[in-house]
Amino acid sequence: MTDQEMPTLHDVIAARPHVYRFLKPTPLYRYFGLSELLGAKVWVKHENHLPVGAYKVRGGLNLVAHLSQQERESGLYTASTGNHGQSIAFAARAHGLRATVAVPEGANPGKVAAMRGLGAEVVIHGPNYESALEWVVGAAAARGGRLVGGTEDLLIHGVGSYGLEIIEDLPEVDTIIVPVGAGSGACATAIVAKTINPRIEVIAVQSVQAPAMQQSWLAGKPITVPAHTIADGLALSVPFENTRRILRKYLDDFVLVEDSAIEDAVLLLLEHTHNLSEGAGAAPLAAALKLKHRLAGKNVVLVMTGGNLSFERLRKLLAQPRKCGALV
Amino acid sequence: MTDQEMPTLHDVIAARPHVYRFLKPTPLYRYFGLSELLGAKVWVKHENHLPVGAYKVRGGLNLVAHLSQQERESGLYTASTGNHGQSIAFAARAHGLRATVAVPEGANPGKVAAMRGLGAEVVIHGPNYESALEWVVGAAAARGGRLVGGTEDLLIHGVGSYGLEIIEDLPEVDTIIVPVGAGSGACATAIVAKTINPRIEVIAVQSVQAPAMQQSWLAGKPITVPAHTIADGLALSVPFENTRRILRKYLDDFVLVEDSAIEDAVLLLLEHTHNLSEGAGAAPLAAALKLKHRLAGKNVVLVMTGGNLSFERLRKLLAQPRKCGALV
Repeated sequence: MTDQEMPTLHDVIAARPHVYRFLKPTPLYRYFGLSELLGAKVWVKHENHLPVGAYKVRGGLNLVAHLSQQERESGLYTASTGNHGQSIAFAARAHGLRATVAVPEGANPGKVAAMRGLGAEVVIHGPNYESALEWVVGAAAARGGRLVGGTEDLLIHGVGSYGLEIIEDLPEVDTIIVPVGAGSGACATAIVAKTINPRIEVIAVQSVQAPAMQQSWLAGKPITVPAHTIADGLALSVPFENTRRILRKYLDDFVLVEDSAIEDAVLLLLEHTHNLSEGAGAAPLAAALKLKHRLAGKNVVLVMTGGNLSFERLRKLLAQPRKCGALV
Repeated sequence: MTDQEMPTLHDVIAARPHVYRFLKPTPLYRYFGLSELLGAKVWVKHENHLPVGAYKVRGGLNLVAHLSQQERESGLYTASTGNHGQSIAFAARAHGLRATVAVPEGANPGKVAAMRGLGAEVVIHGPNYESALEWVVGAAAARGGRLVGGTEDLLIHGVGSYGLEIIEDLPEVDTIIVPVGAGSGACATAIVAKTINPRIEVIAVQSVQAPAMQQSWLAGKPITVPAHTIADGLALSVPFENTRRILRKYLDDFVLVEDSAIEDAVLLLLEHTHNLSEGAGAAPLAAALKLKHRLAGKNVVLVMTGGNLSFERLRKLLAQPRKCGALV
């Protein structure tokens, strides 16, 4: 992929009508408690307020809008640990198409139920994303279906609409912090922000327990690392090449936080915003707390990418004694 | 108050520009899990997605937009158990005015912190809403401030915008279920729905532990009943006269649910929608479960009026063993 082939702000702008045909811009709210905690002006971008509870639905809607008639008739096939699959299921339903989603064993049961509720065929296969992907590649080939990758350009174009919304609502934003799983959200945000104003700082975050994209970004080449994070939205062990290259070009910084800090952040967000965040959606707050001195006084946007935390995990989280003094 | 003096659909339509100047329409999402549970098509109106996390902010914005210059300069004084106070604090800040909110002892600490974060002066006075009100009436008189009642017509006009959004998004709605504290939300919803289409059924819900408005509605006259509900948004012991009369005229039915059923509903909403609801916001689901046979096959909208459940209450809820088999 050359630079010329990377998604652009123009692609994001062109995707917006396809996204807004089925959903509305999400709120960007300032929270006084979080601002006090961080010594900065802190806003949360509420992608958890979207249908299916995650930003990825924006990408699915744009991708499906661009399919050929033959692809529409063949049905969609994809692999997912959760939110990407919900996105494709939602977009397929919106456009009246069939979707098959392969998920690994142990996938978030709420996300699986939501996909089935949206009418998708869900096939559980293998211990991880890669094994689910292997199955679905075979199934799509055997049945002549349209295989949907996890980070296709059309997904990045659609997802970028939330980045544009941030800058339109808060032109004075200094720093945007965004979590990375496969990387489509961080790529889209970085492309939009850096093209509009290179002084807007875009910081990505992954878990210490699943640092494949961060290590690849640092090294400037793909590095495979096992993923053991509790945050399914951050779990990736083999980097996607297109998003790795985009992040290498556009991203300002890429930090790692411990899973335990992500769990603390889920609780802090529940306390201060009354919103349920999944692990990936809380990772930006964990990163902001780690970077507190650097962010002092700035206008900081934390992207709450999704809210699909499982009930059982929330119960366990709230049952644990926390060391975090800010929690009442 | 004669019928001619009651708020109308026209008042609600006229209020909308003042509401939408500072906020966006909220989503109305269909949930497959809840639909399956109820044997109906179930949508949730997400008023918890608003700034301050509750529908009341719509009313505050409309009221403040209509103040005289003298009232604007005098500052606003009101009493609240929580969300109404946040609404007035938010609207005052949006318009650059001062606000003083009296709350009873033991008020939801998150709501109090949010009011202070919005710049309001919060005064804690007495054991209940009535005692806080008594203090603030005196303070407003002494300082020459504008006293804001809990159910002023201008609040009802603003709040009605969510009712209109429901019908615009889902013209085929059969039943809307809405919780009642002071009654402004239920009144506005009933006026809007019954004026547009008398066949839309509007059902109100209160707690068995705080049934003042329900008993007054049934009796056709004001009845004072002590309020002991865990849901602060439903806690009212002395009915407001204007909302009582509006509900008497427009409402189809008014059901009571146990606090324990409301707690179950908070957990079910967390599981199926990944949204945190406060007790009042979950009461419509508790009512729908009680009315399951009557709602079968219908298009049902549950109004999640607010999401400001305290962290401590959520922790306790999740720690309790539940009898409800649907929870995983």
